[in-house]
Amino acid sequence: MQTIQPKSGKGFILKKGQKLKVIDIEGEQVSDFFCFLESDLSEYFSSGRTMDYLSSIFVGKETVLYSSKSRPLAQIKEDTVGRHDVLLTPCSCDTFRLIYKDDNPAIGCEGNLLNAFKEFGVKETCLPATFNIFMNVEIDKSGEIKVLAPKSKAGDYVVIEALEDIIVGLTACSALQSNNGSFKPIGYEIMD
Amino acid sequence: MQTIQPKSGKGFILKKGQKLKVIDIEGEQVSDFFCFLESDLSEYFSSGRTMDYLSSIFVGKETVLYSSKSRPLAQIKEDTVGRHDVLLTPCSCDTFRLIYKDDNPAIGCEGNLLNAFKEFGVKETCLPATFNIFMNVEIDKSGEIKVLAPKSKAGDYVVIEALEDIIVGLTACSALQSNNGSFKPIGYEIMD
Repeated sequence: MQTIQPKSGKGFILKKGQKLKVIDIEGEQVSDFFCFLESDLSEYFSSGRTMDYLSSIFVGKETVLYSSKSRPLAQIKEDTVGRHDVLLTPCSCDTFRLIYKDDNPAIGCEGNLLNAFKEFGVKETCLPATFNIFMNVEIDKSGEIKVLAPKSKAGDYVVIEALEDIIVGLTACSALQSNNGSFKPIGYEIMD
Repeated sequence: MQTIQPKSGKGFILKKGQKLKVIDIEGEQVSDFFCFLESDLSEYFSSGRTMDYLSSIFVGKETVLYSSKSRPLAQIKEDTVGRHDVLLTPCSCDTFRLIYKDDNPAIGCEGNLLNAFKEFGVKETCLPATFNIFMNVEIDKSGEIKVLAPKSKAGDYVVIEALEDIIVGLTACSALQSNNGSFKPIGYEIMD
């Protein structure tokens, strides 16, 4: 198992048919996932298209992750938690500046993902909503978004199969509220 | 008042301080809104950032529409309806192919917006989630997305003020389900 240190990120290629296991090593730790189609960097994960075709805001086992051009990029094959988020954008220096009122904001998952993607030629300077693995977001009747403690316990995991060759970015999330007040590592394995 | 014919779109510049009034002429008709920062086409409306900073999935009067780089692009100043959507991507040929099982799909709001943006130099080939004015989307406890008839009646409107110089694309939506089964025009006015 590879380890992503707290508040950091990694990038790697996942070839079609390979599976990625994302493990919450200690529990209650979110991992932001984003990916680009390796053969065309203008095509990438779209939470909007994924929710549209699923007719749900809650992804889980069997959910297909669609691209911005409506291509199936990956599929969730196993999920021991059952609650993740695709509504929210990755935490960023702007998140910390605007929501946390931080004068010296961290780069957050958005910065960590963009840095991880650089070696693969990705030139984007911002990212849309990510697949926020283990993130526990609820919407009440009034539409209010509540970020609650993750439901994941130590050892819980998700397995994602690549349906195309994709460039994956994965983080251990940097936002206190998303991780019940502490920063922990994330584990991952790539399986053929 | 300018009119957008059913199942079509228009593009125009809205200068900082100008207001755009979007009118549901006949009632129960959705209008998809999207915009780019005129001075930098790599920056555009982000539904994800807008929901993050609002802490709600429901936009309305006073809501600031943020960009992909967390810049306030526009603000809703008036709203006679109180229910709109920012979760869903604009209808597209893929929407009609995948959801409606249409063999000869229309280009939808995504195609109409992209065509309207072309004269302003926008080279994108797909769009993320739009501000779907008058679209009535509900999320039930299980997370299921339900597209209901719009709550807008003939003459209802929204007024959006530009906080930067922006390139706006606006449609009369092409998806049957979103418009309670019929296609109608949308009106708009630009006010100094």
